[in-house]
Amino acid sequence: MTYAIGIDIGGTNTDMGLVREDGKIIARANIPTNAYTELKPYIKDMMGCIDRLMKENGVQAIEGIGIGAPNGNFYTGCVDNAPNLTIKGVLNFEEEIHHYMPVPVVLSNDANAAAYGEMVYGGAKGLTNFIMFTLGTGVGSGIVLDGRLVHGSTGAAGELGHAILVPEGRLCSCGRKGCLETYTSARGIVQTFCELRKETPDYAGELKAVDDKDITSKMIGDAANHGDPVALKTYEHTGYWLGIAMTNAVTFSAPQAIFLMGGPTKVGEPLMKPLRESFKKHLLNIFAGSCDIRMSELAANEVAILGAAALIKMKI
Amino acid sequence: MTYAIGIDIGGTNTDMGLVREDGKIIARANIPTNAYTELKPYIKDMMGCIDRLMKENGVQAIEGIGIGAPNGNFYTGCVDNAPNLTIKGVLNFEEEIHHYMPVPVVLSNDANAAAYGEMVYGGAKGLTNFIMFTLGTGVGSGIVLDGRLVHGSTGAAGELGHAILVPEGRLCSCGRKGCLETYTSARGIVQTFCELRKETPDYAGELKAVDDKDITSKMIGDAANHGDPVALKTYEHTGYWLGIAMTNAVTFSAPQAIFLMGGPTKVGEPLMKPLRESFKKHLLNIFAGSCDIRMSELAANEVAILGAAALIKMKI
Repeated sequence: MTYAIGIDIGGTNTDMGLVREDGKIIARANIPTNAYTELKPYIKDMMGCIDRLMKENGVQAIEGIGIGAPNGNFYTGCVDNAPNLTIKGVLNFEEEIHHYMPVPVVLSNDANAAAYGEMVYGGAKGLTNFIMFTLGTGVGSGIVLDGRLVHGSTGAAGELGHAILVPEGRLCSCGRKGCLETYTSARGIVQTFCELRKETPDYAGELKAVDDKDITSKMIGDAANHGDPVALKTYEHTGYWLGIAMTNAVTFSAPQAIFLMGGPTKVGEPLMKPLRESFKKHLLNIFAGSCDIRMSELAANEVAILGAAALIKMKI
Repeated sequence: MTYAIGIDIGGTNTDMGLVREDGKIIARANIPTNAYTELKPYIKDMMGCIDRLMKENGVQAIEGIGIGAPNGNFYTGCVDNAPNLTIKGVLNFEEEIHHYMPVPVVLSNDANAAAYGEMVYGGAKGLTNFIMFTLGTGVGSGIVLDGRLVHGSTGAAGELGHAILVPEGRLCSCGRKGCLETYTSARGIVQTFCELRKETPDYAGELKAVDDKDITSKMIGDAANHGDPVALKTYEHTGYWLGIAMTNAVTFSAPQAIFLMGGPTKVGEPLMKPLRESFKKHLLNIFAGSCDIRMSELAANEVAILGAAALIKMKI
């Protein structure tokens, strides 16, 4: 058995995992990212954790260290000016880690890592062309083409959450209008629900007494699964929009499958049924039958570590 | 100097060219595609032409034969049931050609060939990530990523003309609604002009006396360059739509450049100015400055042959 380290860097926490080649996370550790303002002590403590994880589990050697990080640049091994990190500037993780351990280091962003993790450890095993959509606060994506992650010329390719779905549509946090993210992220789903509820003066469902600002996509998901008509309609719209976005992605790379993960997908059929219908309706006929929609097979609390560890497979 | 053969298969004519490695077309020949209903005699005559082109020009050997064809399947070397060919069925060009000449044979569709031709012989020399949009009766595209043409899992990737730009928008010839093609093809441009003219009862421009059904995109282009306000507005809309489509493509593959070719682009600034403005306005900020829009540098009457010949570079 061989082993790799997967590291998921978030603004608050940095999670590390020792991952066996069969995709089992043998042991985990974490340090608070926001306790650091300098790279060197941060990496020092990170490497201390990794050293301990290896020793405690009798692992002598690892294939490498994979890192999923906001603004992680695959080409340079650096994190470039990530707005939500307390450590500022262009951070050369690869160089700094090599002071401790001369193993391959691979960085990418979290949606890319999730896609690659699905290929190495999850439901995309054996596939060479697929796309992962991650729904959460925003919408991310990772694209695998001919077995390789698509990083493009800048390293930032695969930002399908910011493809414009509706010209002059909803205002996005990126400052532009009509991005997919504004319709199918958790926030987008809440906005759709609130808009539909407003258009339904006789709404008497379970969220009647909850203010717009207190509604979450989880509440809407639960209501939909209880048969709430406005919540169900919300997911009809969401599935419709996401289905169009997915067929657009198919015109680009003709994937074998499109994977879906993230909190807002947990609602299940209220989203999946209209999504499949929209995908089928909007798919260009030459692609009919060539691509299906699947749920990620990785556990929500493991995907970030597994995805990061999987990135190492690109370098060995 | 080495040589390749480029073949452009259209429904009416099949154009062949002997191409020198520096991109000069040494000699050309053609046969009428629609005079054939069987593959064998068609290939026999094609190979006769190629043999003659080589002999007449003292060329002993070629690197291979590249073919741009409707429904050309890169993976199989076949043309699969092309609706506009009089030779029906799945046509195994590669196998049939090998009865005459044991050289590499590569097939792809015409927009893919144009993209690859731009990389080998035109303005994309030295680029490894770019996208070609071809505007004509329809809108085609060819995508190059990490120096390779994107064919996807089916061989049919790169159909950005059928990405849905406006959900529930204009009806497309593919049967779906809102495809980019319905807004930015020659037909789309004519439709936009006719719609805008209808909304402008006091229109007194040079196309006032021309019926909707007789308007061509060439006429609208000329009128725009003469200052016709409705024609200019037509290209403002066209550039706006195409700019959004291009920024959406950037979110996918982060190209270094987007190339543009085809009849409707010949109008020049009336299209290019609003296109550049829309592209700049709609580009996600992380891609700012990483990608620009360029015109194809290949001659309109050479691109099909050169693109087809260039495909051979993928196999050698």
